[in-house]
Amino acid sequence: MKTVTIIGAGVMGSAMALPFSDRGYDVRLVGTHLDSEIIASIKTKHFHPKLNVTLPANVQAYAHGELVAALGSDTDLILLGVSSAGISWALDQLSQFMQQPIPILMITKGMHAEINSLVTLPDVVSNSLTEKFGSSVKIAAIAGPCIAGELAVRRQTGTIIVSHDQGFARQLCQDLETDYYHPRPSIDMIGVETCAAFKNFFAIAVGWANGYLEQIPTAENKAKNNNAAAIIFDQAVHELISLTKALGGQIENVWGMAGVGDLYVTCQAGRNSKLGTNLGRGLTYSQVREGPMKGDTIEGADLGRAAAHAIKAMIADGTLTKRSIPLTLSLLSALSTETSLDMPWKDFHQTN
Amino acid sequence: MKTVTIIGAGVMGSAMALPFSDRGYDVRLVGTHLDSEIIASIKTKHFHPKLNVTLPANVQAYAHGELVAALGSDTDLILLGVSSAGISWALDQLSQFMQQPIPILMITKGMHAEINSLVTLPDVVSNSLTEKFGSSVKIAAIAGPCIAGELAVRRQTGTIIVSHDQGFARQLCQDLETDYYHPRPSIDMIGVETCAAFKNFFAIAVGWANGYLEQIPTAENKAKNNNAAAIIFDQAVHELISLTKALGGQIENVWGMAGVGDLYVTCQAGRNSKLGTNLGRGLTYSQVREGPMKGDTIEGADLGRAAAHAIKAMIADGTLTKRSIPLTLSLLSALSTETSLDMPWKDFHQTN
Repeated sequence: MKTVTIIGAGVMGSAMALPFSDRGYDVRLVGTHLDSEIIASIKTKHFHPKLNVTLPANVQAYAHGELVAALGSDTDLILLGVSSAGISWALDQLSQFMQQPIPILMITKGMHAEINSLVTLPDVVSNSLTEKFGSSVKIAAIAGPCIAGELAVRRQTGTIIVSHDQGFARQLCQDLETDYYHPRPSIDMIGVETCAAFKNFFAIAVGWANGYLEQIPTAENKAKNNNAAAIIFDQAVHELISLTKALGGQIENVWGMAGVGDLYVTCQAGRNSKLGTNLGRGLTYSQVREGPMKGDTIEGADLGRAAAHAIKAMIADGTLTKRSIPLTLSLLSALSTETSLDMPWKDFHQTN
Repeated sequence: MKTVTIIGAGVMGSAMALPFSDRGYDVRLVGTHLDSEIIASIKTKHFHPKLNVTLPANVQAYAHGELVAALGSDTDLILLGVSSAGISWALDQLSQFMQQPIPILMITKGMHAEINSLVTLPDVVSNSLTEKFGSSVKIAAIAGPCIAGELAVRRQTGTIIVSHDQGFARQLCQDLETDYYHPRPSIDMIGVETCAAFKNFFAIAVGWANGYLEQIPTAENKAKNNNAAAIIFDQAVHELISLTKALGGQIENVWGMAGVGDLYVTCQAGRNSKLGTNLGRGLTYSQVREGPMKGDTIEGADLGRAAAHAIKAMIADGTLTKRSIPLTLSLLSALSTETSLDMPWKDFHQTN
C-alpha cells in the first residue's frame, strides 16, 4: 500500500484524493491555516464543504499543525496542493519537516516572474530544496483542463504530468490512470508551464467578447459575439506558440492538454474570463479591482502584471517580436494603465 | 465601382453582402429556387427574413430566373453562396450562363469524398469549369469562424481566404478588410479545406459531453462535464493535425482560423453539436435521424459518412495510422452502425 500526503486541502488538492484513493493509495490530506473548517468537516463527517462531496473512506484529514504526523516515515509521495500564493509557506514547511527526499507532485502550476525572465514553478520548488537534499527530490507537476469539482465526482478528465525526469512522469501516469482520469507524461517543463500560466491570461481576452456584447446596442437580429470570441481564442493559441518558442518550450504542448485543452475549459467560466467580461463592459482593470472583483485572486492578471517586464526584455533582446504578440501587448497595457482593453483586430493573425 | 454577384441568398451568402457593400461594391444577390421568399422580401422591403436584418441600400435582389441579368457583362467577381448540396446546380448554371472567366470566391467549403480520396470543393469547382474556360477562372474560398447573423450586423469576424493563386487571395483580403471583417490570405488549399470540413465532424464529438451529462445521475455537487468536453476538443485538434498531414496540408492551418478558431465557434451551437448531444444521450445515429433531427442537414455527419471509405483507404496504405485518430474512428463507427458513440478515452492523447 502506497501513501500520498496532500499538502493543502483546497478544491484541487482534495479532488486529487479521488484517483489516488481509487488506485489504492492511502491518502493523508493536510490543511493549511486557511483550511481549518474544511479539515474539521472531513474529520467529523468526511464531507468536503467546498467541493460539496463526501470523500472516500481512505482519505484521512490532518490539521494545519499535524504535517509531521501526516508525513510520518512512510509517505511515498507528496502532492503539493497549495495555490501559487501558498507556495512559499509550503516550501518553508517542507524544508523544516521533510526528513528524506520524498518525490513531489505539484498541482500548483505556472511561471514565476523574475525581472528579466520567467522560471517555471516546479523549477522554483526544485531549486529551493537543493540546499537540503541536492537534486535528489524528484519533482513533477500536473497541468491540463481539470475543474476540481468534476474530478471529485469522477467525471472524465485528462491531464499532463510533466517532469524533467521522464521515468518519474511515466510512473505517476501509470499509478494514476483510472477509468475517468487520464494523465499523459511530458518532459517539456517550459512548454507545459508556459501554457499552464498564460492560458489564464488569455482567457481574460476571450471573456472580453461577452462583456463587449452587453454594452453595445442590441442588433436587429439579436446577434451575439461568438465570431469575435473565436478569433480572440485563435489569436491566443498563436501567441501561446510565440511565447512558448521564445521561452524555449516545445510548441506541441500548445495544442496539447496544457494549452488548447486548458484554454478551452478556462474560457467557459472562472475568474479570468469574468475579469475579461468586465473589461469588455468598458471598465478599466483598476475599476474592476475596486468594484465587482474586489479581493478576488485573478491568476491570469497577476501573471500578466508580474511577467510584463520579462516579456518586454525578450522583445528588447530580439527573442520575441511585437508583431507576433499583439493581443498580449494590448492586454498587458490594459492591466497596467487606466485604459480599457483595446482589441488590435487588424494585427491579429498576421504572422507567427 | 466594382460589382459582385452573389449566387445563393441563404444566410452566409447574404451576410457577405455587408463587407462587399461597405467596401463600395455594387452587390447583386441572386436567389436559388429555394430562396423565393427571401428574394421577394428583399425586393419589397430590403429585409432578409432569415438573417432578420435590413440589407444595405446597394444590395439588389434577383430571383431564381434572373441570373443572366444579374451577371450582366460587368460582374467583376462571383461569390458562390450556395450550400454544398447546391453546388452541382450552381456549377450547371455557371457553365450555361457565365460568358467570360469571372473570378469566383466560394463560401461553400470542405471536401468532396471520392472512393479512395478526398478532393477540396474549390478544386471540384475549378475542374468543372476547365472544359469551358481552361484554367483561366480564378478560384478562392473562405473558411474560418463566421456565424452569418453576426457578420450581417458587422460584428468582429476573422476569416481565411484560400486560393492556389496567392495574388488573388491577397487581393480579395485587401478588397474585403473593414473595421469589422478581417480576412487573411492562404495558399494551403488542402489544409484549410480539411479543417473547414472536419471541424464540423469533430464538433459532433465535443457536443457529446453535454448530452452524456444529461443521462447520468446528478452528482452530489452538481458537477458538469467540461473536463470531458475539453479533452475531446483537444483530441479533435490532434486528429485534425493527423488528417491534415495525411492529406498533404500544412498543419499551421489547424491552429489557424479554419481549424481551432472555427472548431471553437462550431462547438458553441449548431446542428453538428446538437447531433453530438443526442448521441451523448445514448441515441444511435439512426435514432437521431428518425427522431429529434429528422430532415436536418448535418454537415459533419454527411462528411464523415462520405469520407469513411477514403479514411480507411489511407489507413490501409499507411498514410494514416489508427493510433493517431481514435476519436475519428469511434465517430465513424457511431455514424455507420446501430451503436452509440463510445469514447475511447484511454487512446486519447497517446501520440500524433
